[in-house]
Amino acid sequence: MDPHDATPSTPQNKSKRKKAPGAATIGIDAAKKTNFSSWYQQVLLRGEMIDYYDVSGCYVLRPGSWEIWEILQEWFNAEIKKRGVRNCSFPMFVTEDALNKEQDHIDGFSAEVAWVTQSGSTKLEKKVAVRPTSETIMYPALSNWIRSYRDLPLRLNQWNSVVRWEFKSPQPFLRSREFNWQEGHTAHLTKADADTEVRDILGLYTQIYRDFLALPVVPGQKTEREKFAGGLYTTTVEAYIPTTGRAIQGATSHCLGQNFSRMFDISFEDPSALAEDGTARRAYVWQNSWAYSSRVLGVMVMVHGDNQGLVLPPKVAPTQVIIVPVGISAQTSVEARERILDATASVENALEQAGIRAQSDTRDEHSPGWKFNHWEVKGVPLRLEIGSRELDKDVVSTSRRDDSSKGQLSLSKISTEVPTLLDTIQSDMYNRALDTFRRKLKIVTSWNEFTPALNDLNVCLIPFCLDEGCEDSIKAMSERAANVGGQEQDATAPSMGAKSLCIPFAQPSELENTDTICLREECTRKAQKWCLFGRSY
Amino acid sequence: MDPHDATPSTPQNKSKRKKAPGAATIGIDAAKKTNFSSWYQQVLLRGEMIDYYDVSGCYVLRPGSWEIWEILQEWFNAEIKKRGVRNCSFPMFVTEDALNKEQDHIDGFSAEVAWVTQSGSTKLEKKVAVRPTSETIMYPALSNWIRSYRDLPLRLNQWNSVVRWEFKSPQPFLRSREFNWQEGHTAHLTKADADTEVRDILGLYTQIYRDFLALPVVPGQKTEREKFAGGLYTTTVEAYIPTTGRAIQGATSHCLGQNFSRMFDISFEDPSALAEDGTARRAYVWQNSWAYSSRVLGVMVMVHGDNQGLVLPPKVAPTQVIIVPVGISAQTSVEARERILDATASVENALEQAGIRAQSDTRDEHSPGWKFNHWEVKGVPLRLEIGSRELDKDVVSTSRRDDSSKGQLSLSKISTEVPTLLDTIQSDMYNRALDTFRRKLKIVTSWNEFTPALNDLNVCLIPFCLDEGCEDSIKAMSERAANVGGQEQDATAPSMGAKSLCIPFAQPSELENTDTICLREECTRKAQKWCLFGRSY
Repeated sequence: MDPHDATPSTPQNKSKRKKAPGAATIGIDAAKKTNFSSWYQQVLLRGEMIDYYDVSGCYVLRPGSWEIWEILQEWFNAEIKKRGVRNCSFPMFVTEDALNKEQDHIDGFSAEVAWVTQSGSTKLEKKVAVRPTSETIMYPALSNWIRSYRDLPLRLNQWNSVVRWEFKSPQPFLRSREFNWQEGHTAHLTKADADTEVRDILGLYTQIYRDFLALPVVPGQKTEREKFAGGLYTTTVEAYIPTTGRAIQGATSHCLGQNFSRMFDISFEDPSALAEDGTARRAYVWQNSWAYSSRVLGVMVMVHGDNQGLVLPPKVAPTQVIIVPVGISAQTSVEARERILDATASVENALEQAGIRAQSDTRDEHSPGWKFNHWEVKGVPLRLEIGSRELDKDVVSTSRRDDSSKGQLSLSKISTEVPTLLDTIQSDMYNRALDTFRRKLKIVTSWNEFTPALNDLNVCLIPFCLDEGCEDSIKAMSERAANVGGQEQDATAPSMGAKSLCIPFAQPSELENTDTICLREECTRKAQKWCLFGRSY
Repeated sequence: MDPHDATPSTPQNKSKRKKAPGAATIGIDAAKKTNFSSWYQQVLLRGEMIDYYDVSGCYVLRPGSWEIWEILQEWFNAEIKKRGVRNCSFPMFVTEDALNKEQDHIDGFSAEVAWVTQSGSTKLEKKVAVRPTSETIMYPALSNWIRSYRDLPLRLNQWNSVVRWEFKSPQPFLRSREFNWQEGHTAHLTKADADTEVRDILGLYTQIYRDFLALPVVPGQKTEREKFAGGLYTTTVEAYIPTTGRAIQGATSHCLGQNFSRMFDISFEDPSALAEDGTARRAYVWQNSWAYSSRVLGVMVMVHGDNQGLVLPPKVAPTQVIIVPVGISAQTSVEARERILDATASVENALEQAGIRAQSDTRDEHSPGWKFNHWEVKGVPLRLEIGSRELDKDVVSTSRRDDSSKGQLSLSKISTEVPTLLDTIQSDMYNRALDTFRRKLKIVTSWNEFTPALNDLNVCLIPFCLDEGCEDSIKAMSERAANVGGQEQDATAPSMGAKSLCIPFAQPSELENTDTICLREECTRKAQKWCLFGRSY
């Protein structure tokens, strides 16, 4: 998707647009199923989550998305602080020397690094990179701060943005040249401690998807091929976009082992291991790094959004309930009007008191129908309508964004029934997404079924030998197969080969003497693990 | 101050340091009064607020400072959200075209702009700047989002870091090439609305200094000479560092007028003003921008810190109370020891229940004396000591960090008396700072008194004509005078001329037919306002 095509509002065409404000469409006119890229773009723009920007691959995160980010941030901060993680802020710049210190690591990023070479009109003596990630920025400091085993564990986190100047097609949230994230960096005495934390944090990422974004994910370990550059192993939660049948890496928690600690001399005197001369031996710390990014917002939009616009899970919706007064016209008496508006205000107030993020839309200049559409595009989970008919019965009318179902709630119980209804919406959204995902997660044990299953928008669990060559081979063969017989699902997503997504921690069964499906002549190995493969973002 | 001189812990000398860990000094060995620069450096490093970094002018903000920043952030966020300001996130990069759009504005920043010219090994077609501030980044979007007077006011804020690649000596928090801040950007229908907000936000900045950092500030308006580049007028809160006698701009709230809105076409159809052909006229919005930065932390350290290290005001201290068990030795019975440690745990728990950020230091490997010193360097406002002597009397011993005074509190009332004592510490710290500032704020009405007053570490309120030429003249003359007869107060602070700091909103008296003190032959004007002048950071 070219971020500049079909953009409805660039500075250049402002005067044209202003001349015909009535022509501005607030609804979505691309269908999710048949024109996914345009649909995604429209939903984000018209739902006021993002705006385009004149540096390609960078996007404006409007309050509509940033406030969701803040809700996740608040929860995640509380969780990691409970665990003793402390927030801090390291510089955004890194010298070439530091960045190049760990070879595998820099190989993983070097092509995408943005370099500052000039200040004002002066050339810098030494160029500096804008952080693509902060391992090489933070670890020289850890080397100074850690002197004794008593300084361990040391757990730090920062919230910032990083830059990876990719030249692939950018996509808002999913692939942008600058993106927001948190990055945790921790040092431990033993591998066991590091291992435990890796999985503990991955559990938090699972919760973000499941409990906040109403999305199922598959937690597992990345293959050697797909692990973090320079790390020991990478764990991940993998999400799934039904419309395109593509998986997406949701968040990762890496054990870095002792690779960086050796490079950056993050060591301590280990009293339990004496050298020959009787002094304590130098020991290196075990390190982790873990991150989730604003990508989570893109996944949420892609899965839950519909042809009317955004559909936000109540837990993260900046506005959970919109209250619209109805049935007021020029003929309505002043008393009737006041009665409706008073009730609207008191419902809003009661909901706020109950801790609900509620808002009322009492604007005169728009009809209720216009308002319904407006708040639907923005994905507000629950709409309440209040008119004379409702008040005569002491109720409010309800309309759910997720399934369009209507109902009524007793006015006197509003403070308890609205929260209950929001919880129901949240769990219904999750269950629908889970149900879809279960139907599209196929166990495939022969090569002939593999590409057809991908073409049918599935992700596939296959018995796999874990060999990197076989992984490449599967990717190449599924690409070829797709190009020959495959169905093109999305004009902007090229028929691509399937990557390994993860080795799920929950294996469907024991594998004993099972063949892999990779068909590669060189491969004589048996399957080691069930591995999740799929086309992916 | 060169950030690399006298740094105790760079990666290069790690092994040397490790060989002699006992040699590490945790106390401060530079005196605040006689060696201010080294003192400031040591307090920040050994108080674990910052660390140095291998890109000159950039610093690591350790949890010890970042958690203070988070406390301020939480309060400020709540305040602005109450006012309808919404947070968002704009890209860090800006094109040359956008940056150059407002000439005065870019003139104010151009020499300090950091340019990304290269990604990987590829030269970018068009270089992009790292934001020095976000007016030119955000305002093209505002032009699209504001279509009607009904879209006003539009109030946005973001928390991020900005880069100004200055070549003056860097100072942690006060002048760094990258620094953290919030930047509010708002658009209003009328100048009156914009004016009101400028002062309202300045009031929040005053509260940050007064109520959180226990520091007095002078709110006022900048002269034309010192206002924000491209804006209409700038308001400021000015703080004061007694040890150096220098003032410092604490935070600024700018009214941008319609200058940027004209440049970026941020306009709407004004139904109240019809053009000749009967259509609504285009009207431009009135804009503000306002910011406070991590500089606030530097000011707090410089004013409150002492020869023992940091002194943190309780409201912002990440740890407000440190509890140290005392009187435990090898001879102490198991029962006595357990009694002390149980009491320590239960006091910590009781304080946490009361909403106090309390921590106990029960480490075996350090003596109470070592711990007292350790937590003093870090500035923890209140220390509680618990030993058998205390428990026999049902009390805890107290030691205040701000004035070293000791006392005792009844164990049974700990949950109420500790919060009260913390409040007392907070207000005592403010009152001492205010008292000092009042003594060093001199009303000066003749030139002969001016430079001597500056040399005596005062800031001066003078009757002033507000002419820019006279401002330059005062600066030049006070610099000359200082060089001839002045006392050098701080080796790292060159004898500098006095700048105008602000025109205080609270004027000491009416000025009628009063001469200015500027002695400039060309100046025949009378004083317009009392203006605050001083040497400054």
